[in-house]
Amino acid sequence: MRSAYHEQLEILNRTLGEMCELSGLTMEHATRALLQADLEVAEKIIEDRERMTVLTADAEDQAFKLLALQAPVAGELREVVTGFQIAADIDRMYALALHVAKVARLRHPEPALPEEVRGYFAEMGRLAVRLAQGAREVLSTLDPKAALALGVDDDAMDDLHRHLFSVLMDREWPHGVAAAVDVTLLGRYYERFADHAVAIGRRVVFQATGKTPEQFADAEQ
Amino acid sequence: MRSAYHEQLEILNRTLGEMCELSGLTMEHATRALLQADLEVAEKIIEDRERMTVLTADAEDQAFKLLALQAPVAGELREVVTGFQIAADIDRMYALALHVAKVARLRHPEPALPEEVRGYFAEMGRLAVRLAQGAREVLSTLDPKAALALGVDDDAMDDLHRHLFSVLMDREWPHGVAAAVDVTLLGRYYERFADHAVAIGRRVVFQATGKTPEQFADAEQ
Repeated sequence: MRSAYHEQLEILNRTLGEMCELSGLTMEHATRALLQADLEVAEKIIEDRERMTVLTADAEDQAFKLLALQAPVAGELREVVTGFQIAADIDRMYALALHVAKVARLRHPEPALPEEVRGYFAEMGRLAVRLAQGAREVLSTLDPKAALALGVDDDAMDDLHRHLFSVLMDREWPHGVAAAVDVTLLGRYYERFADHAVAIGRRVVFQATGKTPEQFADAEQ
Repeated sequence: MRSAYHEQLEILNRTLGEMCELSGLTMEHATRALLQADLEVAEKIIEDRERMTVLTADAEDQAFKLLALQAPVAGELREVVTGFQIAADIDRMYALALHVAKVARLRHPEPALPEEVRGYFAEMGRLAVRLAQGAREVLSTLDPKAALALGVDDDAMDDLHRHLFSVLMDREWPHGVAAAVDVTLLGRYYERFADHAVAIGRRVVFQATGKTPEQFADAEQ
């Protein structure tokens, strides 16, 4: 028989899953706004930002109720506290996607990105969206292997980020300093977005196994 | 008579205070390493990074114990959960100070900063350190007015950050794109450091008054 605790935890996890979906979708649209200098898409994202505020407040309320009404102990207590931390990670991912949309809006009608780096951002956007989807999935399945595997896409993101910087720094960059500043900050937003998705994966590994991701990876080898 | 709850909460708050102090001190040293291209100081910071890992783990353990042994409800429950969130903020401030030290190390023996922007970073460093000290104080006093007032230094930080960008973007920047990228990222690290200190202040306002910072500010007027 399922306990009231597990029913309420499922509600919390469903909210966290919705938050992940919204973050991923927002990053997908923000990347489109950035690549296509699409003002309408950028403004829609920025107007809709209350949605995440509401979802984050919902998740925190649900987690508080779980603590207050079910008074979980040991592993279950950790599970709920982790829920707060995951909500904070997703909230930040969403804020970073918003930052991308704001740069697209600020530079419109010009594209924020020189042609030369558009391919990098198309790929970083694709990875970011996939990481958000992956985080959503592991929040639902609590599969520690899949949670750990989010690190692979994050490594790919870090590689792209490093290459992007070498394009900025090593070649004759003909687009001036203002464009370089935009590209630097945008690159950082995507990289941080990925870091938070990986952090969610790490928390899920710990929830599911009681091990740190490093301990779990060692045990799997 | 003081309850076991309050005794344990005081232990947690003391750990959070120590974390704040370490973050502020690390940012102070990192700024010195940056401004003086001081490799020794930068390396010392980077070597010492386990100290924050230990303190963060201590704070989380203390908060878990509070939840598990005292099973606080209502306002006290929120107080403890806020402790986890504050620990995460300070941990991030520390990571940002480390990032500054790493840039100083990477560029050594060259200074990472062109002469033209050193004054900005000296001032941003001063503000960052003061914000960390302020956060430490309000964690101890739980004074909501002082907590809210952290926003003043954060506004000053944002102003400096904007001016820094106008130096990068509007003038004839003679230092090339690589230096512009460093300055952009470094500026972001200081600005985010300040944001986290303000977030701590906002959490303290809520703890002390049960009001959001906006509600509290309105009521004070």
